[in-house]
Amino acid sequence: MSTREKILDTALALFNKNGTATVSTNHIAEAAGMSPGNLYYHFHNKEEIIRALFERLHAANAAGFELPIGKQPSLHDLQEFIRFNYKTLWQYRFAYRELVALLRSDPKLKNRFVEVRQRGLEGFRQLVNAFAAAGMLQTLETTAEIENLAQVIWIISEFWLNSLEISGETVNKSQMERGVKLMLQVLKPYIKKGEARV
Amino acid sequence: MSTREKILDTALALFNKNGTATVSTNHIAEAAGMSPGNLYYHFHNKEEIIRALFERLHAANAAGFELPIGKQPSLHDLQEFIRFNYKTLWQYRFAYRELVALLRSDPKLKNRFVEVRQRGLEGFRQLVNAFAAAGMLQTLETTAEIENLAQVIWIISEFWLNSLEISGETVNKSQMERGVKLMLQVLKPYIKKGEARV
Repeated sequence: MSTREKILDTALALFNKNGTATVSTNHIAEAAGMSPGNLYYHFHNKEEIIRALFERLHAANAAGFELPIGKQPSLHDLQEFIRFNYKTLWQYRFAYRELVALLRSDPKLKNRFVEVRQRGLEGFRQLVNAFAAAGMLQTLETTAEIENLAQVIWIISEFWLNSLEISGETVNKSQMERGVKLMLQVLKPYIKKGEARV
Repeated sequence: MSTREKILDTALALFNKNGTATVSTNHIAEAAGMSPGNLYYHFHNKEEIIRALFERLHAANAAGFELPIGKQPSLHDLQEFIRFNYKTLWQYRFAYRELVALLRSDPKLKNRFVEVRQRGLEGFRQLVNAFAAAGMLQTLETTAEIENLAQVIWIISEFWLNSLEISGETVNKSQMERGVKLMLQVLKPYIKKGEARV
């Protein structure tokens, strides 16, 4: 593992455990077993580390939405997409827990996030169309409907951890499966009868 | 208007405009045209003002979910419920914009919020059942399905402003109607055919 990757892995673990506010670059260097100077060679400040972790998150999300090549997508594929999405969400949970505040305080992070999010919505549209073409989803009536559905799916995904937190529930890994169920509930009416149960 | 109400109205306007972080009790007193001592007589600190505004918000939400007495609820009623919900949301927008952070920093506020939220979910269940009994909604298959739907509706409602913000869109009053559309999209598959279009 490169030093850079080691710093990012260590930072991710600390941010997930304690939140970004109380973790300094010195804490990260110490936990990674290196000098602050060595860390500084790779990242000038905490913001750069957070931005690099968001890049990893974006890459993970993009990889999770790739359609299998050369075969028709199935309902199983759809469920796997959703599960994978929540797995990534849990892996980068600090980013989702602090999403609004982090983007508010770093315009550079936000601009990039907005850009990637747009592409994600576009990818989702293609996914819905591919599933519809495979005869698995009822074709949605209008582009506006697909857009609405994409928005709903996005809100659930991006704010699932926050939603658990403000409802007073324990936020742990096992709650991810409930998030999966919520998304499938939203998609269920569009899945053709006989295609399997949610 | 009582002095107490005047303080709360002034604080709400300032919080909505500037966020809670930069508004002090002195700012509020000044904008309300009273001495800090007069304000202090009613509220000991900013947290108490925020808690009182959340109580108003809870009351507004509760009033918005009351079923009309003595007549069958209609699709129009459902749409009005949802519109009213977003109207309240916009009226108390500081609370939704800063929801996660505010609840994180004030356990007292959070406990009360969790309690009211539970009751809100219970009210939604009753509402769904009333609409189903009026033959307007397809009966949902299981209690778990109603629960999922309630959760989805709640997430959209509570995080609509945050969602607009992180998508880089302008957050203004006209966006509330889009929130209404998203909710109706989620409910649409359950509304009986012929009951009117969303």
